[in-house]
Amino acid sequence: MLEELKKAVYEANMLLPKYQLVTFTWGNVSQIDRETGYFAIKPSGVDYDKLTPDDMVIMDLEGNKIEGRYNPSSDTPTHIELYKAFPNIGGIVHTHSSWATSWAQAGRGIPCYGTTHADYMYGEIPCVRCLTKDEIEGAYEKNTGLLIADYFKDKDYQAVPAVLCKNHGPFTWGKDGHEAVHNAVVLEEVAKMAARCESINPQVQPAPQELQDKHYYRKHGANAYYGQK
Amino acid sequence: MLEELKKAVYEANMLLPKYQLVTFTWGNVSQIDRETGYFAIKPSGVDYDKLTPDDMVIMDLEGNKIEGRYNPSSDTPTHIELYKAFPNIGGIVHTHSSWATSWAQAGRGIPCYGTTHADYMYGEIPCVRCLTKDEIEGAYEKNTGLLIADYFKDKDYQAVPAVLCKNHGPFTWGKDGHEAVHNAVVLEEVAKMAARCESINPQVQPAPQELQDKHYYRKHGANAYYGQK
Amino acid sequence: MLEELKKAVYEANMLLPKYQLVTFTWGNVSQIDRETGYFAIKPSGVDYDKLTPDDMVIMDLEGNKIEGRYNPSSDTPTHIELYKAFPNIGGIVHTHSSWATSWAQAGRGIPCYGTTHADYMYGEIPCVRCLTKDEIEGAYEKNTGLLIADYFKDKDYQAVPAVLCKNHGPFTWGKDGHEAVHNAVVLEEVAKMAARCESINPQVQPAPQELQDKHYYRKHGANAYYGQK
Amino acid sequence: MLEELKKAVYEANMLLPKYQLVTFTWGNVSQIDRETGYFAIKPSGVDYDKLTPDDMVIMDLEGNKIEGRYNPSSDTPTHIELYKAFPNIGGIVHTHSSWATSWAQAGRGIPCYGTTHADYMYGEIPCVRCLTKDEIEGAYEKNTGLLIADYFKDKDYQAVPAVLCKNHGPFTWGKDGHEAVHNAVVLEEVAKMAARCESINPQVQPAPQELQDKHYYRKHGANAYYGQK
Repeated sequence: MLEELKKAVYEANMLLPKYQLVTFTWGNVSQIDRETGYFAIKPSGVDYDKLTPDDMVIMDLEGNKIEGRYNPSSDTPTHIELYKAFPNIGGIVHTHSSWATSWAQAGRGIPCYGTTHADYMYGEIPCVRCLTKDEIEGAYEKNTGLLIADYFKDKDYQAVPAVLCKNHGPFTWGKDGHEAVHNAVVLEEVAKMAARCESINPQVQPAPQELQDKHYYRKHGANAYYGQK
Repeated sequence: MLEELKKAVYEANMLLPKYQLVTFTWGNVSQIDRETGYFAIKPSGVDYDKLTPDDMVIMDLEGNKIEGRYNPSSDTPTHIELYKAFPNIGGIVHTHSSWATSWAQAGRGIPCYGTTHADYMYGEIPCVRCLTKDEIEGAYEKNTGLLIADYFKDKDYQAVPAVLCKNHGPFTWGKDGHEAVHNAVVLEEVAKMAARCESINPQVQPAPQELQDKHYYRKHGANAYYGQK
Repeated sequence: MLEELKKAVYEANMLLPKYQLVTFTWGNVSQIDRETGYFAIKPSGVDYDKLTPDDMVIMDLEGNKIEGRYNPSSDTPTHIELYKAFPNIGGIVHTHSSWATSWAQAGRGIPCYGTTHADYMYGEIPCVRCLTKDEIEGAYEKNTGLLIADYFKDKDYQAVPAVLCKNHGPFTWGKDGHEAVHNAVVLEEVAKMAARCESINPQVQPAPQELQDKHYYRKHGANAYYGQK
Repeated sequence: MLEELKKAVYEANMLLPKYQLVTFTWGNVSQIDRETGYFAIKPSGVDYDKLTPDDMVIMDLEGNKIEGRYNPSSDTPTHIELYKAFPNIGGIVHTHSSWATSWAQAGRGIPCYGTTHADYMYGEIPCVRCLTKDEIEGAYEKNTGLLIADYFKDKDYQAVPAVLCKNHGPFTWGKDGHEAVHNAVVLEEVAKMAARCESINPQVQPAPQELQDKHYYRKHGANAYYGQK
């Protein structure tokens, strides 16, 4: 079971350079097995060129290393808090992808300007506040996860599988690591087009709500009709 | 005959990733055989990596599936309305290509700023309005086609083989699927340069009409002299 | 001799897609043999994928085709006027490269903002006016060449081997086709950085004259010391 | 020993085209052996395609050529001054990479807008003034090095391993040539995101100091915990 999990997480990690979402080691993917509560995650600071499935680190949700010769990603405590808070997700991605990170640095959520966005994410992609001095100087990575969890506590984290952390960068999630990477690609594309769109028309408004609804529910929920069933 | 049509449409679809016009499955090409009224179109939500000529779906203009194991693209009703309204076209493309979609999201048509544009498209590339709530909640994809057809009912759809749908993205067309893809590439390049041009000179005006005429008619109509005859 | 000329021009043309300066057939390179007055140029509208050295067209400076089964580039009359006006050049390039064309569409010359520009081109890269209605409706391509020649009649065309034609795109030149392509690459890079530079600092001023002089004369003239002698 | 040094510098130079930091020959890497005081540097104006380890030029810190058939990079006197002023560095890179050069041309330092920046560089990446007329017309490249050294004389050059020279471009450094290239890649990415970030939010402020501290010291100094120890 762990071998399969490591392989899945390795393959999802290798999609990050494929889709040009990472420079050097600036990203990581994890995936959880909900039955055991174990998850696999990329080791910290190891080059994608040299990564093998066997390098993935197996952790539990208390932060104990179960298996692996490397230290896990330094963002592991963030992943743990998200897995705890979002019971229906199975994979998480963090990157410093260029356009999404530019929005995060700008401290702005990404308005839904069109159907590309609405097909995958319901409404604005939020940008959560910077951590306070105390939160930063304390358990920084854990507090990042707690802040995201707190933001979504009364919202549908499955309908908006992405968040920007101010002055930092994006996290995305999904039913497994592969889907979380898929959402990271969507986020980057949507972030790019939203920035260009505002530059082309500084007075642009979000897409009408009924169009957002149409596209989101064309792909999600009981009445979805996109793709093959 | 159907085999040839499927092959042509398959090959035209595969040009979309080649020219970097699509992310994931965000695009589709169709081509019609005007004698039978049958057209072939990409199946809905199938990865380009896995596509084969045999996966193409054959449809008629009443929306009946004639052949194929997959569901056709969810945009099929839009293609049908365009084939009905534009009798001289043989192929249609829809993408979410980044620059053209940014203009669509911005809700602006693309002014003709230069000869690259004028060589292929005569005058501004229009951006049609967003559908109304009723149009969206009804036969959404069909209504998209009807809106485009209505816009062009007193205009030359062959001289402007492209349109932007507000908050959505572009459609292009041509004498066959291959030419429609060609026009999608031109549109993306023109959209990119128009945005940059406005950023370099916010007071920029469209190219003089006589220059637009010169370039368009250098390549089109009885007095064309570009290329090999 | 003609075989060598064709081969050189073919190879220079193939650098345009290599350096991503062309989409489809939107560009051409020529090179002249000053002894015979013959020059070779890309045929009109032929795909780069299918081009062979033998497809190059040999022309003389009166516009007569000397050899070749294709029509020459429709821009041939522009090349002829430049070869006549600029006796020290041996090669000419025309492209619709994206950043240079955006400046041309914006109707602005490119100020010299730094040493990358100054290393190759002395001072602002000019943007010549749009042709008049009469000039466009007459011998359009020839008049394009005459306008460029007229602009440079009291300037040093070797120190500024590039020009933008308003609402159209760039021409560059050099001692042969290869060097003209080199200058087209420089122009595109300089155009990109100048646009970004103005966006980062809208009040930016051109580089000090003494810095422009230093870099230009570091690479050109009797006291050049860059590279290997 | 010199063979190893040449090989290391050759390999570091070849990373510049790999990471798309150079056009043509617009960049160079050097690396010093502190015991002998000899350093290896790229020859001036030689194409990356044709470079071999044996083409590297060995110099001493007085500017004497120790070994090599080529002239060293014309920027060699700048490298010498930096090696003299910064005793703890072992490698230096100069490029005209597009985004960093755009900031240099704009004459602005790059504010620290987020953790991508803070992970590698502590605080704003400075832009030093243009040289004076006298400095330019005198020992230009040496004076460039002296100006950078002077700027850092009361600052921590290891915490900010990068500088922009106004109207020119960036220099970066590190413990060896490889790390200096790594920092050049980081600089280009940070420069790109800072420009986009300001465009998305023109009122953006630098990241809070405590976040900058956290990320910098997560990777540097006695309490670093990123990566594998």
